[in-house]
Amino acid sequence: MRMLVAVLALVLGTVAHATDLLPSWNDGPTKAALVSFVSRTTDPRSRDFLPPAERIAVFDNDGTLWAEQPMYVQMAFALDRVKVLAPQHPEWQDKEPFASLLKGDVKGALAGGEHAIAEIVMATHAGITTDEFEAVVRDWITTAKHPKTGRLYTEMVYQPMLELLAYLRANGFKTFIVSGGGVEFMRPWTERVYGIPPEQVVGSSIRTKYEMRDGEPVIARLPEIDFIDDKAGKPVGIHKFVGRRPIAAFGNSDGDFEMLEWTTSGPGRRLGLIVHHDDEAREFAYDRASAIGRLDRALDEAGRRGWLVVSMKNDWRNVYAPAR
Amino acid sequence: MRMLVAVLALVLGTVAHATDLLPSWNDGPTKAALVSFVSRTTDPRSRDFLPPAERIAVFDNDGTLWAEQPMYVQMAFALDRVKVLAPQHPEWQDKEPFASLLKGDVKGALAGGEHAIAEIVMATHAGITTDEFEAVVRDWITTAKHPKTGRLYTEMVYQPMLELLAYLRANGFKTFIVSGGGVEFMRPWTERVYGIPPEQVVGSSIRTKYEMRDGEPVIARLPEIDFIDDKAGKPVGIHKFVGRRPIAAFGNSDGDFEMLEWTTSGPGRRLGLIVHHDDEAREFAYDRASAIGRLDRALDEAGRRGWLVVSMKNDWRNVYAPAR
Repeated sequence: MRMLVAVLALVLGTVAHATDLLPSWNDGPTKAALVSFVSRTTDPRSRDFLPPAERIAVFDNDGTLWAEQPMYVQMAFALDRVKVLAPQHPEWQDKEPFASLLKGDVKGALAGGEHAIAEIVMATHAGITTDEFEAVVRDWITTAKHPKTGRLYTEMVYQPMLELLAYLRANGFKTFIVSGGGVEFMRPWTERVYGIPPEQVVGSSIRTKYEMRDGEPVIARLPEIDFIDDKAGKPVGIHKFVGRRPIAAFGNSDGDFEMLEWTTSGPGRRLGLIVHHDDEAREFAYDRASAIGRLDRALDEAGRRGWLVVSMKNDWRNVYAPAR
Repeated sequence: MRMLVAVLALVLGTVAHATDLLPSWNDGPTKAALVSFVSRTTDPRSRDFLPPAERIAVFDNDGTLWAEQPMYVQMAFALDRVKVLAPQHPEWQDKEPFASLLKGDVKGALAGGEHAIAEIVMATHAGITTDEFEAVVRDWITTAKHPKTGRLYTEMVYQPMLELLAYLRANGFKTFIVSGGGVEFMRPWTERVYGIPPEQVVGSSIRTKYEMRDGEPVIARLPEIDFIDDKAGKPVGIHKFVGRRPIAAFGNSDGDFEMLEWTTSGPGRRLGLIVHHDDEAREFAYDRASAIGRLDRALDEAGRRGWLVVSMKNDWRNVYAPAR
């Protein structure tokens, strides 16, 4: 048995040391800080050591794991869905925000603000069963293309973040998504794309109801908000779905402020990280003035709170994951 | 490397075959059905094979994993808590249901029905932070004793069910609790007692709110119901927190009916199991007429729905887990 253990240690040790699990991260202080955090929380000799059960890491989705410009992917989904459903809704031809949308005037449609968005979301996300909605999302996500790059949205996930997710998991972390986006818009594909199973996805949701249809049970999606997982809703969502305070949080906008604050205010070693979109050439450049993914207060306070700010331009060797 | 693989296969194979992982289950059709289900869903040569990601098993808690008589453990907690908090609430001396409770008249207090129970729950479960509540639960659960057996409540968990949980996990299943009880009453101890981490516990909840207190963020517990995870709420809770339909469900009362129905209506091989409390000598005997854990419709329909009915008296060699 001693021989077996020795052989195993050799094999595993060699693999662990020979491989840089973060090849898309340029060497520098950000990458060094990530590696140091993981090493300190997982090395049994470190005073910051935590057992695997405590190694909870939470990731925002839009703008943190994949691109969110020029509009949230879920909004693109909703707009496409309006077109698909329009023949069943002749009344939409004269009713805002649908009328503008169907004429191709997205700006006009969204001029109605939150109320218009809520109308579009409910019309496109409710009224069917959860199984039906899942099938719709699966179909859409495997075919819809980004208006600027012409790539599948799932090819616009950030390669460095995929590596970071895998690196954390290889070190015993459990990775969760905590997104303002709809939980049922994400769950059908997060396992395939991010390696994050449905039960580790926290997001906004609408109410559902269990009922019998033609003798078979279904879960029906109702046109009512259940939970908004954004801003101060993020720590609430974490507490509700995960049930413990994370030790690492990753975001990119002020919508992630409270999640970062809640995570990094806990005792012991903590990690907060903000992805700063400063790479116009390879992705998009935006922060304080952007309606989508506004990053203002969190950027101001990152320094004194000890949050890492990732420069996509300088810290990332690659941006998007290779097609697969 | 071939040598290493051969040695490993030998070591692991020997362990797997030499051990009965369900020693507290008497040999018979129930145990055989459990083993057969696990074998068929996990053997790659079986046409019912499912990858580990799909092996989701959900367990009710009260009456399924631990005793629920003569009253739900959480109700005992709430009643104890009323006594602890009474000095801060002089008004309770003249106000029902608290006045009766403080005189030791539980029956009188609960005569107010659901309204009385809601008042007791809110008074004892809300108004403090989630960290504070967790500490209160931890303290209580490690000291409070069952009125009849004098044992810790956590020693009144069912040994055969602990074995079943471990057996399923050893076969790649992910085990979840889906309980009508409060999620924050369970999470502080389910990992230690059942091996189920907080993020795999689904239950009823009250609303919470993220806020700053003395410059530190807290999550405050509010006196408002957020979600009732019982009856038709169980499939809704499963969908909301787990995000996929389980392939196995374990319950003991009509409160688990919809969870069993939802689980076993899915395609492919499914398992539904009801723990029937028919062991007056070693535990309690109750079903159709009991206010707590009423088992009536589910017992009637178990046969035609193919749900296993466990006789605690005949199927279980042991009932409670040994003290530890």
